[in-house]
Amino acid sequence: MEFAHIVKSFDEDLAQINQMVMEMGGIVEQSIEDAAVSLVHRDLAKAAQVIASDKLVDSIEEQLEEKLVRVLALRQPQAQDLRLVVAVFKVAADLERIGDYAKNLAKRVQIFAEIQPNTSNSERTIKRMCLLVQKMLKDVLDAYIGKDAALAEDVWMRDEQVDQMHDGLFRELLTYMMEDPRNITPCMHLLFIAKNVERMGDHTTSIAEQVIFLVTGAKPTEKRPKSNTTLSQEV
Amino acid sequence: MEFAHIVKSFDEDLAQINQMVMEMGGIVEQSIEDAAVSLVHRDLAKAAQVIASDKLVDSIEEQLEEKLVRVLALRQPQAQDLRLVVAVFKVAADLERIGDYAKNLAKRVQIFAEIQPNTSNSERTIKRMCLLVQKMLKDVLDAYIGKDAALAEDVWMRDEQVDQMHDGLFRELLTYMMEDPRNITPCMHLLFIAKNVERMGDHTTSIAEQVIFLVTGAKPTEKRPKSNTTLSQEV
Repeated sequence: MEFAHIVKSFDEDLAQINQMVMEMGGIVEQSIEDAAVSLVHRDLAKAAQVIASDKLVDSIEEQLEEKLVRVLALRQPQAQDLRLVVAVFKVAADLERIGDYAKNLAKRVQIFAEIQPNTSNSERTIKRMCLLVQKMLKDVLDAYIGKDAALAEDVWMRDEQVDQMHDGLFRELLTYMMEDPRNITPCMHLLFIAKNVERMGDHTTSIAEQVIFLVTGAKPTEKRPKSNTTLSQEV
Repeated sequence: MEFAHIVKSFDEDLAQINQMVMEMGGIVEQSIEDAAVSLVHRDLAKAAQVIASDKLVDSIEEQLEEKLVRVLALRQPQAQDLRLVVAVFKVAADLERIGDYAKNLAKRVQIFAEIQPNTSNSERTIKRMCLLVQKMLKDVLDAYIGKDAALAEDVWMRDEQVDQMHDGLFRELLTYMMEDPRNITPCMHLLFIAKNVERMGDHTTSIAEQVIFLVTGAKPTEKRPKSNTTLSQEV
């Protein structure tokens, strides 16, 4: 009975852990969309909401870490269970980073509301990038809960689209900057925003790798298609 | 005797873990300097060396993680020891990220060698920023090994200087871009490089927080001085 008890308890812990991951993930998913919409519509209230949500995400991450440490101490999980706990630490860190990037996008909305630049085209591209990453994040969280390696692999491959959009945007923004010096400041901000969205995609891809590893026991073997640009791809 | 044996084994594990942290840290420290020097001197061989070193750093991080998982599984450390193992996961991740940023700086040296921009002033500022971060990293690794919370706190405070240099550089580069459109492409790269160096400082600060937490049991309470710039500070 003792054994069954311990096993059951770990399952209960796991259910709680997964609930926290999903809660964090859900908030971050929403923040990505809200940040993009707040930029395009200069919606300062929505931007403020994204900034506030990030505090909540940080606090859930802290609680989740505490929970994971307690599980390690009390249950001393082995093999697969131990791998899972270690993976969740990383997934939580990735989610926290994505939340940070969304917050940083939201912070720049304030600047855009003040300077009112004429960059709506590029802003819409950024919104599309954000929605792509948001869908990737939704799918990777589904893959995590459903132990669906195929879906995680699909997310992993999709990051290439985000990278390509980022490359296109990078070139477009450089052109605007060269055309008119008044474009330089707003385009700079958009370049940093675009880079942040591209990084959100990278962190989503990292989560996908954790899911693939948890389900199959191996890292993705296929070489991920990478856009060929020393110009814009670096971190 | 059994108890003493287990304790001794954990200490031996810990010695190995610390050695791996120091090895990773040492390579990353050197890479920061090499990357900066390769930029200022257009030294492609040195840049290539930084890129190669990053692969080594990644591989040590992987081995270190394996080691940490084995220690969790076999020793089932409790309390302080468990906190330490969890902290080392984070420290390793921070070091890996700093290494990535150094690699990305080195990759851009290739571009600079091709376009030969006239941006030596700003490049020298970046080199100074890099040397500042390198010293912070050296000190925080010493603080980790020596369990020196005061030194870690000092590193944690010093990040403000890096942020201030980043702010100044950001403004300088924007000015150059506005003066002459031919400056836009190289200055863009320098802006991304500067941002990367600023992020290196942030990750070094994170390591300092881990050290303070390990030694004192609490996160730093004092509010860290932060430069006041929505303009350039965001991730």
